Amino acid sequence: MIFVDAKLFLIEYAQKAEQYLDDFFAVKKRETDKISPVCRKMVDIYRDHLRGGKKARGALMVLGYRLAGGRDEEKIFRASIYPEIIQSFLLIHDDIMDQDLIRRGRPTPQAFYTSLYRERGFIGDAKHFGLSMALDLGDFGIYLGQEALFKSGFEKEKIADVIALSNKIYQETALGQALDVFGEVSGEFNEDYVLKIHFLKTAQYSVTAPMQFGAILAGAEQKFLNLLISYGDYIGTAFQIYDDILGLFGDEKSLGKKVGARDIKEGKVTLLIVKAFEEAEKPDKMFLQRVYGNKKISKKEVLKVQKIIKKSGSFDYSLKKSHELIEKGKIFIPQITKNPEFQNTLCSLADFMISRTS
Amino acid sequence: MIFVDAKLFLIEYAQKAEQYLDDFFAVKKRETDKISPVCRKMVDIYRDHLRGGKKARGALMVLGYRLAGGRDEEKIFRASIYPEIIQSFLLIHDDIMDQDLIRRGRPTPQAFYTSLYRERGFIGDAKHFGLSMALDLGDFGIYLGQEALFKSGFEKEKIADVIALSNKIYQETALGQALDVFGEVSGEFNEDYVLKIHFLKTAQYSVTAPMQFGAILAGAEQKFLNLLISYGDYIGTAFQIYDDILGLFGDEKSLGKKVGARDIKEGKVTLLIVKAFEEAEKPDKMFLQRVYGNKKISKKEVLKVQKIIKKSGSFDYSLKKSHELIEKGKIFIPQITKNPEFQNTLCSLADFMISRTS
Repeated sequence: MIFVDAKLFLIEYAQKAEQYLDDFFAVKKRETDKISPVCRKMVDIYRDHLRGGKKARGALMVLGYRLAGGRDEEKIFRASIYPEIIQSFLLIHDDIMDQDLIRRGRPTPQAFYTSLYRERGFIGDAKHFGLSMALDLGDFGIYLGQEALFKSGFEKEKIADVIALSNKIYQETALGQALDVFGEVSGEFNEDYVLKIHFLKTAQYSVTAPMQFGAILAGAEQKFLNLLISYGDYIGTAFQIYDDILGLFGDEKSLGKKVGARDIKEGKVTLLIVKAFEEAEKPDKMFLQRVYGNKKISKKEVLKVQKIIKKSGSFDYSLKKSHELIEKGKIFIPQITKNPEFQNTLCSLADFMISRTS
Repeated sequence: MIFVDAKLFLIEYAQKAEQYLDDFFAVKKRETDKISPVCRKMVDIYRDHLRGGKKARGALMVLGYRLAGGRDEEKIFRASIYPEIIQSFLLIHDDIMDQDLIRRGRPTPQAFYTSLYRERGFIGDAKHFGLSMALDLGDFGIYLGQEALFKSGFEKEKIADVIALSNKIYQETALGQALDVFGEVSGEFNEDYVLKIHFLKTAQYSVTAPMQFGAILAGAEQKFLNLLISYGDYIGTAFQIYDDILGLFGDEKSLGKKVGARDIKEGKVTLLIVKAFEEAEKPDKMFLQRVYGNKKISKKEVLKVQKIIKKSGSFDYSLKKSHELIEKGKIFIPQITKNPEFQNTLCSLADFMISRTS
């Protein structure tokens, strides 16, 4: 088939997907233009929100389709923007929850509408207006995403199956998000709790769901989907553990964002911090308790947190855990496909989860 | 068929629907219990949010099904909780946008979680935590609603058609909401703008969409759906115009809520205010400009706004408009159904839109 190396496949997909997004949004722009410039602007903002980024979910949907024997590349590319449009809805809402005003170097929809409000000289609460518009824009995006799926040209029955699975997965994503929010404010979490969130919010949502969507559209049976789930749950969980390592210890240049302070300030629920709390010596533990989740942490304190995480063995534990999970996931590859090229793709995809720098 | 008078039908439906909601949520409670008490609690809150209320959308879905010849009462009742669950998602998000902390005499999800946060003594911003949880709960509800539809037992193809229509309608609901939010802060709106919002946010969303959902599940063709759309757009728009009259001039006892001040404080985009701005004498117009959208309006000023709306002829204009729309909608009844009992139901439903007291 077309790609062997997962990293190249992801890059190629991300480039190609932009055209499919443009085509879909061009129609939507014309439709909303007829309603009002306010509505048309919302569509522009949503389209821009989808620009750039890894687009891994769309790529995995295409991969799942191919693995299950699907051959209509045009249709699957059209369908594959579905999880990407959903991802933007979730990011727009997440950025409200996290009070983030910048993403990928651009103002978030909330920040955009807050500025617009101020420019126009409207009276009242500019920030709340920005929040309201971003919240509404996210809600709009859910149905936009589903529309893209319906416009792909696949049979209605298969699309219904994808929606049915989405209902399950995206409910659980929201439940995982709630656990995450609760964990951050209560500070009450252990390894099981963290892995549950990784499963709900990352492995299922970002890996196994998109792969299954594609496989369903290719007509795969449940037995095959179960293999994708086994593979995806392991490598998806490893992805998140490694992502949290990058978030605290990654290279800022490659990542294109600040490292360390952010996760600590947020009190982010990670395996790194759970293990450090468990294993650190008493004074270090007390230090962690004091600074973790503190919005005003100093650079020096960030360095000390990093040091404690290394010294306590937590860093090695997370790294080892992510490697083990990748190996467990790989076990299922020969059952998923006999095609050696596909096997290579799945193998390199698994490795990429814990070797990437961004 | 079972009911002739629309009002009785609505009441009977609302009572019966509680059982179907209980059945659906009982399963969901068991499922989420296995994940975490935090998740289970979310389901409880969502179920409680659906308690009471008119449940007109579910009832109209049942009505649309019967009108199109559907005969499986059990299945359609199971399916009819779909637009109700979606309605709760939108209300939860609307209450965030409107900063409302009470609905139907109960704290909103945002208010509930804000209190919980304070009780638990979590550190940080209780209000923002409440907002985040409510936002997430709404997102959860979207997929919960769709799941209910899938569990109704109807054929996958028909369910896919309902979802496809939902994608269109609920996108437009979000667009209408944006126009509403924009209108409130900018104060820039005219009759066309108001009627556009009424169409997007009320007529389509609350009347024609649910009726069409039911008709689609009964296997109706587009020609029949178009008749429902004609009927529903007229009576749905009349409903909103009359609703805004109740909001400013209704009987507080029957409505169970404060009348007048709220809509004025919010700067609500209504036909009443548009016409008053257009027709009022200059000093009255200047007074309206000063107090409309002002959160600190006095009781005396509310009375004066009411007086201006009456004196300018705007009150009569809205009332007349709503009556005209109802008559226009009724014209389509004989084409929708030849059954005299159904004709009576549709006729009494139309009349009910502009004769209710709550």
